[in-house]
Amino acid sequence: MTEKNQQIVLASRPEGMPGNDNFEYQETSIVEPQDGEILVKTIYLSVDPYMRGRMSSAKSYVAPFEVNEVIHGNVVGEVVQSKSSLFETGDKVIGMLGWRRYNTVGDASVRKVDGSAAPLSTYLGILGLTGLTAYFGLLDIGRPAEGETVVVSGAAGAVGMVAGQIAKLRGARVVGIAGTDKKTEYLKSELRFNETINYNTTDDLVESVKQACPEGVDVYFDNVGGPVSDAVMTQLNDFARIPVCGAISSYNKTEEDIGPRVQPTLVKSRALIQGFIVGDYAPRFQEGSEKLATWLSEGKLKYEETLVEGFENTPKAFLGLFSGENLGKQLVKVSEPTE
Amino acid sequence: MTEKNQQIVLASRPEGMPGNDNFEYQETSIVEPQDGEILVKTIYLSVDPYMRGRMSSAKSYVAPFEVNEVIHGNVVGEVVQSKSSLFETGDKVIGMLGWRRYNTVGDASVRKVDGSAAPLSTYLGILGLTGLTAYFGLLDIGRPAEGETVVVSGAAGAVGMVAGQIAKLRGARVVGIAGTDKKTEYLKSELRFNETINYNTTDDLVESVKQACPEGVDVYFDNVGGPVSDAVMTQLNDFARIPVCGAISSYNKTEEDIGPRVQPTLVKSRALIQGFIVGDYAPRFQEGSEKLATWLSEGKLKYEETLVEGFENTPKAFLGLFSGENLGKQLVKVSEPTE
Repeated sequence: MTEKNQQIVLASRPEGMPGNDNFEYQETSIVEPQDGEILVKTIYLSVDPYMRGRMSSAKSYVAPFEVNEVIHGNVVGEVVQSKSSLFETGDKVIGMLGWRRYNTVGDASVRKVDGSAAPLSTYLGILGLTGLTAYFGLLDIGRPAEGETVVVSGAAGAVGMVAGQIAKLRGARVVGIAGTDKKTEYLKSELRFNETINYNTTDDLVESVKQACPEGVDVYFDNVGGPVSDAVMTQLNDFARIPVCGAISSYNKTEEDIGPRVQPTLVKSRALIQGFIVGDYAPRFQEGSEKLATWLSEGKLKYEETLVEGFENTPKAFLGLFSGENLGKQLVKVSEPTE
Repeated sequence: MTEKNQQIVLASRPEGMPGNDNFEYQETSIVEPQDGEILVKTIYLSVDPYMRGRMSSAKSYVAPFEVNEVIHGNVVGEVVQSKSSLFETGDKVIGMLGWRRYNTVGDASVRKVDGSAAPLSTYLGILGLTGLTAYFGLLDIGRPAEGETVVVSGAAGAVGMVAGQIAKLRGARVVGIAGTDKKTEYLKSELRFNETINYNTTDDLVESVKQACPEGVDVYFDNVGGPVSDAVMTQLNDFARIPVCGAISSYNKTEEDIGPRVQPTLVKSRALIQGFIVGDYAPRFQEGSEKLATWLSEGKLKYEETLVEGFENTPKAFLGLFSGENLGKQLVKVSEPTE
């Protein structure tokens, strides 16, 4: 290997909105794989809102990234050198790997994906943790029944898009909330959402939710928290269910995230709010993956990707999540697969 | 019947904290029971925090009281005249009746209670909706496991006291939060709570919760909402469960009840918050009542009552709930039973 390696480390912990300064791009060398190891060339990198949490030192469900260490995330890559009996050169794999052009890892760190069954990028999106997040959050906590009203915030994001479509497959009436007209138009025309709300252009969010949900809200798939969620929660039906997938509106706050307390609303409506992370459903990933793959192959699920080209643009792709630049799954295209 | 009747109507809807002005005491006459009706003399009246909600016109899980109409609540009384084949004079009954010395009602409005099996007052408290509220909220939503830490707010109130004791019966470590030293001492010495917090005398609620719950909070039985709940929610363990029984801290607020938004906390801990009302468990009341009666007869549950004497003092008893004057169940003793 004569090619140089590159990697991106966390240069400093962001306070508030992260910026380019929090990342450092470094030239390094490629580490030769030893017995039981493989060398993986990065094809796609996934950037996800939850990674913002790992940039802080606060305790959470995943350990924080360390300053001056390489950031890790989901990667689809190609085995370019193998000292493992489990993998051959050319195999496509997925794993939680470093933000590097080349990762040298033990063969237990990745698993194979089949690029002929579905585009490689989908294993980071609709067929990966993104799709599974929507699948389990919506069906296990949200439990929409036919004819119920399901509201999805962050509806044009990677998870929200899948959650809304699954809700439609279950016969629910689906209302999507997003931040641009381009997004809401996509949700209506391409994904056939019943109603949409652009939270950036309405001057009365509560009224917008009320109009979009004349029969109230039975399930609220919450990706964002903040004022959008406050508004949706004014329209809950009795026994509403609220899977809380994320709270992107709060991740870059430097002050405490203050809003209406939920307790009075919960007692009135006997609603349930539950936070979840997809990892908690690991024992059921097989079930979810098969279902998502079936729906996808039958044309019942659509997906969208926003690609940023070039490894060096990974921080840019990540930062764009917080200004809502992505439609669907935000990925970084780092290299072409061999064939 | 030569005796006069008296009743209390809602004179006006309170704004903020209710006061005597919102109630009007009226002299009326006793209505003769017709066929299928009975005349019930009030022995005990139950006053409960949830009634504050019914004094407002806002939509909730029970219809609002109407201005100039008699307030209704749970009553234990004695049948003093019967035109029903189902009841005899002298029978003790319970039902949702008017705040009156005498109610004339159809025989489907009440059911018999057995004053020889347990004191009559307990049917309004530990053997009634109060006990059932604690039972179902704690066991169905809270689901405490042996060795887990259960925090109860409003712990010296009627519901909290039962919830904490049931949690102890399930082998949990129980921490009670209350507003006076008299209450916290009662919880420790009489009910054997493991730890208590007086939220009125601590200057750092979060720190107090942290110290009382060194292994974090697995179940939080929430009767109060507000800053007490904010503090408890900083110490949630993964997969914590929070039955929200009431939010007494908010009932008299004239401004919106603002506090830290829960979404970020919920995602981190994957906790569940669920509002409930006891009526939702009506199909399982038999199960709950039998269990509570068994525990009570075995001496495994204790209860406490705060009695105000005299029908005319009913508003006073009700208002006292919001300044925390009651230890355990707040009742009004209106008359003596015949035998």
